[in-house]
Amino acid sequence: MQFSEDERLRRAELPKQRAKEYHRLYKGKIEISLKVPVRSYDDFAIWYTPGVAEPCLEIKENEDAVFEYTNRGNTVAIVTDGTRILGLGDIGAAAGLPVMEGKALLFKYLGGVDAIPICLGTKNAAEIISAVRWLSPTFGGINLEDIETPKCFGILETLREKLEIPVWHDDQQGTALVTLAALINALKVVGKDLKDVKIAFVGAGAAGISCFKYVVKAGARPKNIVMCDSKGILHPARKDLSDEKRRVAELTSPEGAGGIAEALEGADVCISMARPGPGVIKKEWLRRMNDGAVSFNCANPVPEIWPWEAKEAGVKIVGTGRSDFENQINNALGFPAVFRGALDVAARKITDEMCLAAARAIAEFADERGLSESYIIPKLEETEVFIREAVAVGLEAMKQGVARKKLSKQELKEAAATKIKRAQEILKLLMREGLVRLP
Amino acid sequence: MQFSEDERLRRAELPKQRAKEYHRLYKGKIEISLKVPVRSYDDFAIWYTPGVAEPCLEIKENEDAVFEYTNRGNTVAIVTDGTRILGLGDIGAAAGLPVMEGKALLFKYLGGVDAIPICLGTKNAAEIISAVRWLSPTFGGINLEDIETPKCFGILETLREKLEIPVWHDDQQGTALVTLAALINALKVVGKDLKDVKIAFVGAGAAGISCFKYVVKAGARPKNIVMCDSKGILHPARKDLSDEKRRVAELTSPEGAGGIAEALEGADVCISMARPGPGVIKKEWLRRMNDGAVSFNCANPVPEIWPWEAKEAGVKIVGTGRSDFENQINNALGFPAVFRGALDVAARKITDEMCLAAARAIAEFADERGLSESYIIPKLEETEVFIREAVAVGLEAMKQGVARKKLSKQELKEAAATKIKRAQEILKLLMREGLVRLP
Repeated sequence: MQFSEDERLRRAELPKQRAKEYHRLYKGKIEISLKVPVRSYDDFAIWYTPGVAEPCLEIKENEDAVFEYTNRGNTVAIVTDGTRILGLGDIGAAAGLPVMEGKALLFKYLGGVDAIPICLGTKNAAEIISAVRWLSPTFGGINLEDIETPKCFGILETLREKLEIPVWHDDQQGTALVTLAALINALKVVGKDLKDVKIAFVGAGAAGISCFKYVVKAGARPKNIVMCDSKGILHPARKDLSDEKRRVAELTSPEGAGGIAEALEGADVCISMARPGPGVIKKEWLRRMNDGAVSFNCANPVPEIWPWEAKEAGVKIVGTGRSDFENQINNALGFPAVFRGALDVAARKITDEMCLAAARAIAEFADERGLSESYIIPKLEETEVFIREAVAVGLEAMKQGVARKKLSKQELKEAAATKIKRAQEILKLLMREGLVRLP
Repeated sequence: MQFSEDERLRRAELPKQRAKEYHRLYKGKIEISLKVPVRSYDDFAIWYTPGVAEPCLEIKENEDAVFEYTNRGNTVAIVTDGTRILGLGDIGAAAGLPVMEGKALLFKYLGGVDAIPICLGTKNAAEIISAVRWLSPTFGGINLEDIETPKCFGILETLREKLEIPVWHDDQQGTALVTLAALINALKVVGKDLKDVKIAFVGAGAAGISCFKYVVKAGARPKNIVMCDSKGILHPARKDLSDEKRRVAELTSPEGAGGIAEALEGADVCISMARPGPGVIKKEWLRRMNDGAVSFNCANPVPEIWPWEAKEAGVKIVGTGRSDFENQINNALGFPAVFRGALDVAARKITDEMCLAAARAIAEFADERGLSESYIIPKLEETEVFIREAVAVGLEAMKQGVARKKLSKQELKEAAATKIKRAQEILKLLMREGLVRLP
């Protein structure tokens, strides 16, 4: 990094200053657009009454026909209750809307998916479940977002069981699969093997726990892992653990009591998904890690430790959740393409295996381009990665028998490429013609 | 009408045949589009994390700021439970989606409003109320649609009380205000006065009852009105009446028992909102009406009597709900502009007075252009009517103290014109550039 610390901090603050001004200027980031022609007003007799009655009656007879006659098969609800917005905690449903709109923007631009923000005015788990069930006939998938632990686990599990469309919680599967992709490649760069490395998790929320599950599924040994929450290392003797944390404590290796500093002692990998920093993780703690250390500090909007501080502490490979630093471990590499692949085969579920397939596709894509300390994971600019990933997800869905439609690999590729490129072309056109203006 | 009866029937069937083919081709009528620029991927740091945290935090402090920083202020939920889709009855939530998407298309194209179809998987009134309440933080307004009577009355009333955003039921206020506009002008053409005419309502559902309320508010005398349901004329002696119907029976003039034929005896106006025809109203019944008769036969997809049959029975002015016949009494003249006006002032409610103001604006607009038997109400092509109507609604909202924002008449006009024209320009551009293809 060639900038002074002051300059680095200034640059890290820039998006914050711009965001308020720009959000106020545009009043929202998404809108509805027509995807059918209106040649003359006579066409309304086709798109609306009386013509529209025909597809309605066919769907009445055969409910799956809704995927042929409507946009349901390309539409996802982004559902939050506002209780864990970014790293900001429970700021309320309405205050979560700018984030959900941003997510919808990424869904469309990166995945060609039509996503609708739904900020629910209830925090009750049973009510959230009811709301999503009642909403479900309109949607091809449900993306749960920024819902606090521990209720997010039960909500996800219940909805996955009850609904015949994919339900996922981006803070669980999404974060976990992208982190896993980054970890696979980081370990290649430092020449270590997932089954041997010692991993310290800082933070035992939805993201941390899901990430733990996925790295274990991918080959890491639970006994090489420790996890801390805000009170220290999880171990079975603690009386204050939720069910989810207890399961982790029983699987992992919590010999040494203590906190983050002790967890990092002799670790090869630090994965923090705790709370916004800086200062949550200290330089001197990272110094206790092994040579060739990997540290992913993923809190938003500010990582638990600034990346330049981690580097100064001797960490070899640093990743954060931010787009303005190198190695962005970015959920946006996951959800748009995973849903793209799942929707293109009209999947009934998104299984963990589909997520692992996505992680491997992301990792391979970067590997083929040549890994380095500052390139362990593709950048969002690399549009091809989304297509590769969507294909991998679609193929895995068919393999697992959760796909309503069967497509060839080539068809999957074309389906994904067409929709993603269309979204980007439309925006480019609107910008060129001044219908979306520059600030 | 210059066509043979066979030809008329063939033409009336055309939209039906096309609709299935076209719906299958396009797989849905609306999609999400970005309304902010993405100049480079660095912009994601503004639209999403970390920048997006700033507007979120401001909304947390001041919830009304959500209207400044998001698209909430231009977004309406179209909520149905699928129990009364068009004239098709209870065909289920999923089967209602093509209609709700069509409605969203009209909302955008005619009103510049971003409307989201929400087909709920529950028919329980209390659950529908809960669902809408929980959804409300995302939306600037709620358009209830195609929900069966009698529960639609209670749902509307409860939600209007509880929510601080406009809630309306298009089958109540929407249909009523457009019908009233048509009636005002039809009576001008036949030279009769609303306070003197005898009106027969055929059908006592949500639309008929609301329409009754609005014509009375506009000056018609209840004692000059009769209303029939499927069992005959409503009168207080009947034991089978719902609360809503009983209120109508007590106000109206149900001397003569009997059915539709008796209700039409000596009537000046027939307003049928009953069930799809043809054949629900017979020619010989319409022959019993006074000279200069007006008959609005509004069932969808097929009116209670074909318009050429009504004309043959001596009716002077005929209106239907269909775009392929003259005098379309079309809800699309109402909801897009009423919500446009309500949203532009961030209204907390849509009052009946706002609806009456809309009806008067529609009627005046056609009157200025010159009324005739075949032109009592503007056509959708006359874009200016939507702007006039939105302005009237916005002004009335401010007058009644339900507007969060104060705008001048000129500002209201510009706000409406800009948004409506933008929607139409975008579609034109997408069609021209082949991003929305012709069938």
